Amino acid sequence: MKLDELQRVVREELDELEQQLRAALVSRLPLIQTVADHLLLTRGKRFRPTLLLLSAKLNGGPRPEAICAATVVELIHTATLIHDDSIDKSELRRGFPTVNFKWDDDVSIAMGDFLYSKAFYMLVKNEMYEAMNVLADATHRMSAGEMLEIERRNDLDITEDDYLMMIGEKTASLMSACCEIGALLGNSQDGARGRLSRYGHAVGLAFQITDDLFDFVGQKKVLGKEIGSDVRGGKFTLPVIATLRNATSRDRARMHSILTSGALMDGKWQELLSLIDEYDGIKYSRQRAFAYATEAKQTIKPFEDSPCYLSLCSAVDYTVERKR
Amino acid sequence: MKLDELQRVVREELDELEQQLRAALVSRLPLIQTVADHLLLTRGKRFRPTLLLLSAKLNGGPRPEAICAATVVELIHTATLIHDDSIDKSELRRGFPTVNFKWDDDVSIAMGDFLYSKAFYMLVKNEMYEAMNVLADATHRMSAGEMLEIERRNDLDITEDDYLMMIGEKTASLMSACCEIGALLGNSQDGARGRLSRYGHAVGLAFQITDDLFDFVGQKKVLGKEIGSDVRGGKFTLPVIATLRNATSRDRARMHSILTSGALMDGKWQELLSLIDEYDGIKYSRQRAFAYATEAKQTIKPFEDSPCYLSLCSAVDYTVERKR
Repeated sequence: MKLDELQRVVREELDELEQQLRAALVSRLPLIQTVADHLLLTRGKRFRPTLLLLSAKLNGGPRPEAICAATVVELIHTATLIHDDSIDKSELRRGFPTVNFKWDDDVSIAMGDFLYSKAFYMLVKNEMYEAMNVLADATHRMSAGEMLEIERRNDLDITEDDYLMMIGEKTASLMSACCEIGALLGNSQDGARGRLSRYGHAVGLAFQITDDLFDFVGQKKVLGKEIGSDVRGGKFTLPVIATLRNATSRDRARMHSILTSGALMDGKWQELLSLIDEYDGIKYSRQRAFAYATEAKQTIKPFEDSPCYLSLCSAVDYTVERKR
Repeated sequence: MKLDELQRVVREELDELEQQLRAALVSRLPLIQTVADHLLLTRGKRFRPTLLLLSAKLNGGPRPEAICAATVVELIHTATLIHDDSIDKSELRRGFPTVNFKWDDDVSIAMGDFLYSKAFYMLVKNEMYEAMNVLADATHRMSAGEMLEIERRNDLDITEDDYLMMIGEKTASLMSACCEIGALLGNSQDGARGRLSRYGHAVGLAFQITDDLFDFVGQKKVLGKEIGSDVRGGKFTLPVIATLRNATSRDRARMHSILTSGALMDGKWQELLSLIDEYDGIKYSRQRAFAYATEAKQTIKPFEDSPCYLSLCSAVDYTVERKR
């Protein structure tokens, strides 16, 4: 199922979210407004708000606060992307120049901070303390995950467990928070909060493993960003980790030499892809993503009679089947 | 009065704050712990926590939450400094290398985010919703102030009003929040909240004008950072603004030429200082700082029978009389 199809059931709420987002980004300061307009232009898929709204609708919700929470979540996500792009020195996102590339790192830092503080400001002003509790936890984990990622950069000894912990903190924590907040702000039945939180975590892992695969098998034109930039930036994701683990000592030595060469010139990128291919690094990663996708669906099985159950299942399928 | 003298009345609380701060910065992640240790080593003056605790003690408080709030405020302040140093490309702070210089901008961005989120996490976990309300407002204003500062960089037409608005958002908003939270968490008499908030705002303006003066008249050894870096970075503060406003058109043209030359080589820095001196730019700025200091004291006059009244007055004097 395509994303816009599964979003149909929350289309009205997503339209309202766009308005709230636009309103949140109105500023008297020309620089803030200019950067905000750029961000609205390069709009994402609104996947996190979709998760939140579907979760909230699982039992016939959502309460009006759910749309506000969805807006807040998108602001936090956007702030994270801006800071991440600056940290990763990315130049393109969704086919548009990143904030750090179009302006500079200074604007990225300050605009990210502005969006973060705006998000918490909105939660406080609307007295959404339960949602704040969940999101304070998630943003805390996300920032720790970012530090962990920097720490493990260029680390050839990184294990699959390290990687799962990292993407759990960086990506899955926010998706899990989205679903948990959805449960809070819907009229959820007992146990929905914990289940949806675990569902969101599994979706997040499947999502990030798939995302990291794009850096090897994606197309720049479809992705709207460069290929191979993770490895170039010393970020070793699951295909590399799995290959390193299974390779013969000779091939592992070859991998080390490629991975520490930075720029990946002289056909080194192709050589890396061949090695990963030889050890089924892509296939294995895809299997792991599908395993988490299955786990996500299993987790919400008890709600199979609920109206948004099938949409939440489609959201899982989308996560692993998407092309960008 | 020296800072440590006026801090005597809240010494016990400040010691407890150091412990809470250290506890807040304990992390399983080696990189976070290493950066945190560096930050604890290069500890600041704890001026903002002091304002908060003195305000809370004005009427015989503080409640135990005040120390937690003071810790949170110091975390937010530290996060801001880390991001600011990265934005300003500063290499030294308090005589120690900045985070961006000792590590890099990536670590600065992520560590600043970590501290911000830690601060809100602590507020949420302790259910300090009133303090959170005030701080959400303050951090929102601070980040907007940072964007404003970037926007007005290298702007020769910047007015004193622009400057006051900028430092009001960037610096005074947090000091004002500290004093307001102090009022909230003390056993304050009626009207204290509004008055202490205004007091903190005036203290903040006096503090920042004085801080900006150091960039012209300070000594690197005392300050623990470079002189002239504001002008070099295109940040035109009150001495420059006042001089530009009063200068003859010939001198103004000379100023423009110096200020747009960036590196300030070939004796240009000395020439700039002479021009500022000629038009009493330093003297005028100092007068403005003292005027805000007087205003701050006037604001809290109704509390002159309260135990910490004199300490709050000394805090004002310290603001404008300090050498760093």
